[in-house]
Amino acid sequence: MENGHTNEYIRALSIDGVIFGFHENELKVLLLRWKNTDEWSLPGGFIRVLESVDTAAQRVVQERTGLTHLYLQQFHVFGDAERYDWSEVKRRIGFPYSEGDWWPRTVSIGYYALVDHSKVAPMPDQLTEACAWWALDALPNLLFDHNQIIDVALASLRKDLTEQPIGHLLPDAFTIPELQRLHETILGYELDARNFYKKMMSSDALERLPERRTGTPHKAPFLYRFRE
Amino acid sequence: MENGHTNEYIRALSIDGVIFGFHENELKVLLLRWKNTDEWSLPGGFIRVLESVDTAAQRVVQERTGLTHLYLQQFHVFGDAERYDWSEVKRRIGFPYSEGDWWPRTVSIGYYALVDHSKVAPMPDQLTEACAWWALDALPNLLFDHNQIIDVALASLRKDLTEQPIGHLLPDAFTIPELQRLHETILGYELDARNFYKKMMSSDALERLPERRTGTPHKAPFLYRFRE
Repeated sequence: MENGHTNEYIRALSIDGVIFGFHENELKVLLLRWKNTDEWSLPGGFIRVLESVDTAAQRVVQERTGLTHLYLQQFHVFGDAERYDWSEVKRRIGFPYSEGDWWPRTVSIGYYALVDHSKVAPMPDQLTEACAWWALDALPNLLFDHNQIIDVALASLRKDLTEQPIGHLLPDAFTIPELQRLHETILGYELDARNFYKKMMSSDALERLPERRTGTPHKAPFLYRFRE
Repeated sequence: MENGHTNEYIRALSIDGVIFGFHENELKVLLLRWKNTDEWSLPGGFIRVLESVDTAAQRVVQERTGLTHLYLQQFHVFGDAERYDWSEVKRRIGFPYSEGDWWPRTVSIGYYALVDHSKVAPMPDQLTEACAWWALDALPNLLFDHNQIIDVALASLRKDLTEQPIGHLLPDAFTIPELQRLHETILGYELDARNFYKKMMSSDALERLPERRTGTPHKAPFLYRFRE
């Protein structure tokens, strides 16, 4: 790789990160608000000429969440020739940048992250002034094609629900009803509690902890964690 | 997209195509032999600055197969910083090109195609002198990371077997045993014929044709096709 320029970015290739968190029984995503606007987008970034794409995705998501060693899943490449209306985006964000600083078109590699909401310290980047969680069922009209990217990420997570380590979305210890609610918020429909309990108990994926959850109105429920 | 250069290619981004065909009861892939060598690779190509990635993939696969409107599925991005040993590749292909004509590193978007083997007229490109079908269980040691790319493509096809239109791999009319053999060659293990027949009949995906297959040693079996 003799003629690489290590600090340059690969032109026209980007990463968009759909950072999923689970909070107050809802699935949420982390969004950024652009400076001096009410316009929101997904966090994203670029890949260095000699950098692994997975490493670049870790870097982008880590910068927004403060978390290292995140669970990330590449889910789709967004490569349409005109992914969005560029003049509309310029109007919405005010576009205080020189046109030459922007590439006319990028192909974006979508990654989703599954993070423990309670451990994240959201941080804006140099183009934005706020970073916040938004519930999936109350998203604003995002910049670029980012609503579509979230739709595809959610469809992908749903499809692979039984194979993905969704325990990353939960705190270290959780109850079965909390785990059921996480499944329901990803799937978008309710599950039968008895069947869900039976399925989880028969799967061997969970380990019951010695302590119970206290301070609930019901009989103190058992706490579980996923086996390694 | 005012400052695009329509005939240029996006630097450092490529497409690799895993073209699956089904012939003589085996799953095969289309490979290219490099000029004046015994070295084989997958067909691949680049994306124009203002071209849709899906369109570029159609173009690449169409050039090798002569087929238009192919069924293509994007399955993975290969983005490691060092995907393969470049000096080994240079040694194996003789490298008759100027170093400046090659990009030090490409990120490759993998697509697989499902094609009807009988309709394909394999064609080499300007760097290669042969284009041929290879059975998946007898692949040579390919150039670049192409053995790995085929492994990931096959794993992806297996995972989505019930959702992918694998009828594209079959001729317009086929028997149930032929369809079973296709499932078996993708999955890598044998299926019970009675269960397979029952499952196919109950799925409503198939339509029985008026004619039967003749010229077989057994009672003439019914022919089927997939419903639209």
